[in-house]
Amino acid sequence: MPLETRVIETLSKVTTATLTTILLKKGLRNVWIRGATPLRPGQARVVGPAFTFRFVPAREDLATPASWGSPISTRAAIEAMPEGAFAVIDAMGIADAGVFGDILCARMARRGAAGLVTDGVVRDLAGVLGTGLPVWARGAAAPPSVAGLTFVGWEETVGCGGVCVVPGDVIVADQDGAVVIPAALLDDVVREAPEQERMEAWIVSEIERGEKLPGLYPMNAETKARYDAWRAGQ
Amino acid sequence: MPLETRVIETLSKVTTATLTTILLKKGLRNVWIRGATPLRPGQARVVGPAFTFRFVPAREDLATPASWGSPISTRAAIEAMPEGAFAVIDAMGIADAGVFGDILCARMARRGAAGLVTDGVVRDLAGVLGTGLPVWARGAAAPPSVAGLTFVGWEETVGCGGVCVVPGDVIVADQDGAVVIPAALLDDVVREAPEQERMEAWIVSEIERGEKLPGLYPMNAETKARYDAWRAGQ
Amino acid sequence: MPLETRVIETLSKVTTATLTTILLKKGLRNVWIRGATPLRPGQARVVGPAFTFRFVPAREDLATPASWGSPISTRAAIEAMPEGAFAVIDAMGIADAGVFGDILCARMARRGAAGLVTDGVVRDLAGVLGTGLPVWARGAAAPPSVAGLTFVGWEETVGCGGVCVVPGDVIVADQDGAVVIPAALLDDVVREAPEQERMEAWIVSEIERGEKLPGLYPMNAETKARYDAWRAGQ
Amino acid sequence: MPLETRVIETLSKVTTATLTTILLKKGLRNVWIRGATPLRPGQARVVGPAFTFRFVPAREDLATPASWGSPISTRAAIEAMPEGAFAVIDAMGIADAGVFGDILCARMARRGAAGLVTDGVVRDLAGVLGTGLPVWARGAAAPPSVAGLTFVGWEETVGCGGVCVVPGDVIVADQDGAVVIPAALLDDVVREAPEQERMEAWIVSEIERGEKLPGLYPMNAETKARYDAWRAGQ
Amino acid sequence: MPLETRVIETLSKVTTATLTTILLKKGLRNVWIRGATPLRPGQARVVGPAFTFRFVPAREDLATPASWGSPISTRAAIEAMPEGAFAVIDAMGIADAGVFGDILCARMARRGAAGLVTDGVVRDLAGVLGTGLPVWARGAAAPPSVAGLTFVGWEETVGCGGVCVVPGDVIVADQDGAVVIPAALLDDVVREAPEQERMEAWIVSEIERGEKLPGLYPMNAETKARYDAWRAGQ
Amino acid sequence: MPLETRVIETLSKVTTATLTTILLKKGLRNVWIRGATPLRPGQARVVGPAFTFRFVPAREDLATPASWGSPISTRAAIEAMPEGAFAVIDAMGIADAGVFGDILCARMARRGAAGLVTDGVVRDLAGVLGTGLPVWARGAAAPPSVAGLTFVGWEETVGCGGVCVVPGDVIVADQDGAVVIPAALLDDVVREAPEQERMEAWIVSEIERGEKLPGLYPMNAETKARYDAWRAGQ
Repeated sequence: MPLETRVIETLSKVTTATLTTILLKKGLRNVWIRGATPLRPGQARVVGPAFTFRFVPAREDLATPASWGSPISTRAAIEAMPEGAFAVIDAMGIADAGVFGDILCARMARRGAAGLVTDGVVRDLAGVLGTGLPVWARGAAAPPSVAGLTFVGWEETVGCGGVCVVPGDVIVADQDGAVVIPAALLDDVVREAPEQERMEAWIVSEIERGEKLPGLYPMNAETKARYDAWRAGQ
Repeated sequence: MPLETRVIETLSKVTTATLTTILLKKGLRNVWIRGATPLRPGQARVVGPAFTFRFVPAREDLATPASWGSPISTRAAIEAMPEGAFAVIDAMGIADAGVFGDILCARMARRGAAGLVTDGVVRDLAGVLGTGLPVWARGAAAPPSVAGLTFVGWEETVGCGGVCVVPGDVIVADQDGAVVIPAALLDDVVREAPEQERMEAWIVSEIERGEKLPGLYPMNAETKARYDAWRAGQ
Repeated sequence: MPLETRVIETLSKVTTATLTTILLKKGLRNVWIRGATPLRPGQARVVGPAFTFRFVPAREDLATPASWGSPISTRAAIEAMPEGAFAVIDAMGIADAGVFGDILCARMARRGAAGLVTDGVVRDLAGVLGTGLPVWARGAAAPPSVAGLTFVGWEETVGCGGVCVVPGDVIVADQDGAVVIPAALLDDVVREAPEQERMEAWIVSEIERGEKLPGLYPMNAETKARYDAWRAGQ
Repeated sequence: MPLETRVIETLSKVTTATLTTILLKKGLRNVWIRGATPLRPGQARVVGPAFTFRFVPAREDLATPASWGSPISTRAAIEAMPEGAFAVIDAMGIADAGVFGDILCARMARRGAAGLVTDGVVRDLAGVLGTGLPVWARGAAAPPSVAGLTFVGWEETVGCGGVCVVPGDVIVADQDGAVVIPAALLDDVVREAPEQERMEAWIVSEIERGEKLPGLYPMNAETKARYDAWRAGQ
Repeated sequence: MPLETRVIETLSKVTTATLTTILLKKGLRNVWIRGATPLRPGQARVVGPAFTFRFVPAREDLATPASWGSPISTRAAIEAMPEGAFAVIDAMGIADAGVFGDILCARMARRGAAGLVTDGVVRDLAGVLGTGLPVWARGAAAPPSVAGLTFVGWEETVGCGGVCVVPGDVIVADQDGAVVIPAALLDDVVREAPEQERMEAWIVSEIERGEKLPGLYPMNAETKARYDAWRAGQ
Repeated sequence: MPLETRVIETLSKVTTATLTTILLKKGLRNVWIRGATPLRPGQARVVGPAFTFRFVPAREDLATPASWGSPISTRAAIEAMPEGAFAVIDAMGIADAGVFGDILCARMARRGAAGLVTDGVVRDLAGVLGTGLPVWARGAAAPPSVAGLTFVGWEETVGCGGVCVVPGDVIVADQDGAVVIPAALLDDVVREAPEQERMEAWIVSEIERGEKLPGLYPMNAETKARYDAWRAGQ
């Protein structure tokens, strides 16, 4: 099920920092994928439903160049991705073999993938950047996936960077990394996030005017009244 | 498919050190589960077919005490284990929440499990030791699994301690840890292992007699002839 | 404020595994001190109020043998410990310099300390074991504290093994490690823990009788009724 | 006590590489804060007296959004910072919760802070860069501090990145990271550093002329005489 | 023995990603130096024969500024490097003391070194970048080598970033890091690499035309025929 | 040059804790080999001159079972060890391939080696313990050295567990691990150590009598006088 345009537009304007604050208030502390940073400086925010890939460590009898042609292959998985999906790749944190290089990323970009996040690395960094696919990863490594990884399946619940990701959860990624919004909480988050952003922007403008932190952040009653008045006037 | 008694008897007399040497000669360097040591001093060697469990990191909305009653639960998985199986538990290396405690280990022991190996930890160490189940793990931690882990399924291919384990591979574990024998290589390994053990024992006896290493280990032609003569006389 | 005898007696019969389950149900997932294991095999469970020590990394101009005589010294801190206190030592996880050796542990034991837990290590392991003080640590290292650590104060809120410990919280430690009970939750935990232990012991006895896990753990209504009947008969 | 303008001007022209060499000659090997790199490419060198913040790991009953309003809060600490101070934030190396985001960094910048160094991370990277505050950190993470950290106090001696920092020590930070100059050694360092820089620059110019390393670096007597003659001619 | 111009020209057009694929097919999975990334954004690919340096951890009686004048010094080693050599520096992964700064890198650049790769860090990053020497490292640190390292020799077989490097092996480094080609395999690799690159570029162009992955990568017989026809037409 | 009997006898009565204190006072903070613990519970203290072995990471073309017969092999190195030597094995901290198993340890024991210390692991733990050779290591692993390590030479200066070891330095190892005494400092250490041990034992006896720490440890003038009187009476 693709995301509604309205959801994508709203979340594209919300920082992952704000999203983690909202999720924390709902009791979720562990939603930020550790170790995945944007590979392209100045990478814009990207939103999409999670489409998961699962790797386990390589075993020499299973992870071979020949396995690339197997029916359970990353190739078949990529062809199964719907347009707009955000690839979430569980590489078990292995950083010395790239999950994908320029060829597979080029195909994902061609098929309209929103982005890719992994707790591992990619290979052929220059080639991957050339495809235009937005990527969050631990970096790049030259060796092919079969040097350290065996692909085992797609659209399973996975762990990625210390976070549980269920197919269909929503991924939002920006310069602070990638955050998972559980599907069941999506509506609430989309409703609450814009107000949180508006309020924080107003606080920053107050600080630029020279206001002190106590009473401003978090707001006391007097500040809250002032903010409400400002908001009403928007 | 349970292991034949003959396989269990043969492998019970072969060290995991010897098994890794044999597998290395067949091109497999990555078959030893990192971080899993026997919890009981003097633990005897144990052999059994792998039955896998897969955990991912905890998410507060999924890993709850209530989830213990879900149909996709560790309880259901344990009841599905055949007698003699060796539980292989992918805990993603998480060491601050125990995968199982005394209650679940007691049930596994009661159902005739051969042993349990995990790249995580158990909880209630005294209780687990009391059940008699042989366990290889990174240690023990007090918190329950839901404090750090979410159970997602059983009898899938998993990664455990940096090693790929496919359901039905054979696990052998002793004081050096746990080794995975891919199912397709089992017959060859069972055939070759006893001879490797016999030869190494003879070499140690030669060293005890005062022989020097060069020419002895690995054997040169003269030593080989001497060994063959001894072996023929057995 | 020393702990009431009743509290110590009750908690001495509760595993740290049970305590973390109870605390998790109250929303606390992070109460188990990582990396601290009992130094003595078969160490019995110990209970006491936390008395904290804080170290930072060594700086050559501050961490010198001469500093041992300073008024802000570990010696002064030890003399300030009340009888029955449990020393909690924040060593920032540094494992290549021992926080204390046999001399300071001997004095703690003489003053009636309940135990010592650290995310660092002790030194002179044989000597420390000889004092009889129960110790939970990452192990032992020969170098003195000044080789890697500078002592900065006592009875401050500290981090120890990834857990926040406030002076006066209660520490319970056994073979699964050490757990922190926040002071404000102590009464509730002391009230609930014995029943939790009783119930789990009954479940283990049911498993030994051959009962299956589903319906037993967690209990369904039928099992709950059976347990209540048994309990009423006690 | 603010730093004299003369001290700031002198140290602004000295690399942290040179400062660590000078401190090593005085016996201090451990003065470089591990893991803190400048968040802005091409970040200029910054100098200021250390003003310390101390965090410990989060505990769910203490680290809550509500705690942001407590009197012992990061807000109160920031308002206590004198102009020109360099914030040193002990985050115990925790990298999955940001110590500060754009709001608090904006207020620090507004109050004239020289910079911020932490062994943890910031959040809302784009926003923090927008405030203009120079920051040295392990990177960025979306989650708020309360997801992983509890603030406990300010102007205490702390450990940051494996280094002991006492309030009032002087911090110098550039592209090689951040270095601590103990307050008692400041005068000596300020006196010796410019000559060390001048000498090293002369050596580089000699290498560019084609001189070989032996005899040049370190200088032998002949080179020393040549350098002294050059210096006299300046 | 310097590399032939033809070898340098060929390898300068081959990605390290392709080189690791070719080496993997020959049975070598461990040829990529972990942790070494290019210090300069957009760093071009560099090729050269390995010239090794070996460090061990510092011991205060051996690693002193005075040792810089010893006959077994990094200075002497640098003067022994032939033009075009690629410095490979085994720093045992130590990241808190820089192996070299601007002075030694300036001399290497002046002597025509191809590049420098280390599993440690450099110091005086701005100065090092100023010398123009291409560097792959874990980053930068202010402290001098003697704060953490002792130099013990050159042109020995070393381990660097988890990879064995023998003097005279060939290093190729680009944005994916640095790869070691064992000297004995050089001719084969130089022969096979251009065809591999040509084929992968054709596949990317096919993807850009909208081709699906299965059958394309790896190629099935039909695709192979199409590629052969295209290649014949070049 | 073997150690004099007098040196061995003296050092056999001195804890490694005391030795590190003495070496720290001489300016050496980094003499304790990290990660090496005694494999046998209750292992007695062992003393011997260092005989070094150096491994680098495995490369598939170099680390093969066939390499065991090469002239540069661990076998040749073991035959070169003088009686009483303490094997110091630089395994670069690699913990998933055993440096030696029962065969090589049996030969070392037969040749009168004092002990073995490594920052790696051994294999065939039961067999190694059976040889009687005292071993300090990070543990045990089943895979053979060639699965992860390549042997490159002996009697070179090495790094082991973060410490520089020069052939001929003296190793002392007990329950707190293994400490390196640089050869040049041996005489001083042997002279000073017994008095340090005597003094610390007296302090412990004072604590057992109920003395407080301040004034006792470190001693003030009054305590010093009391100790001197006691010592004179011995």
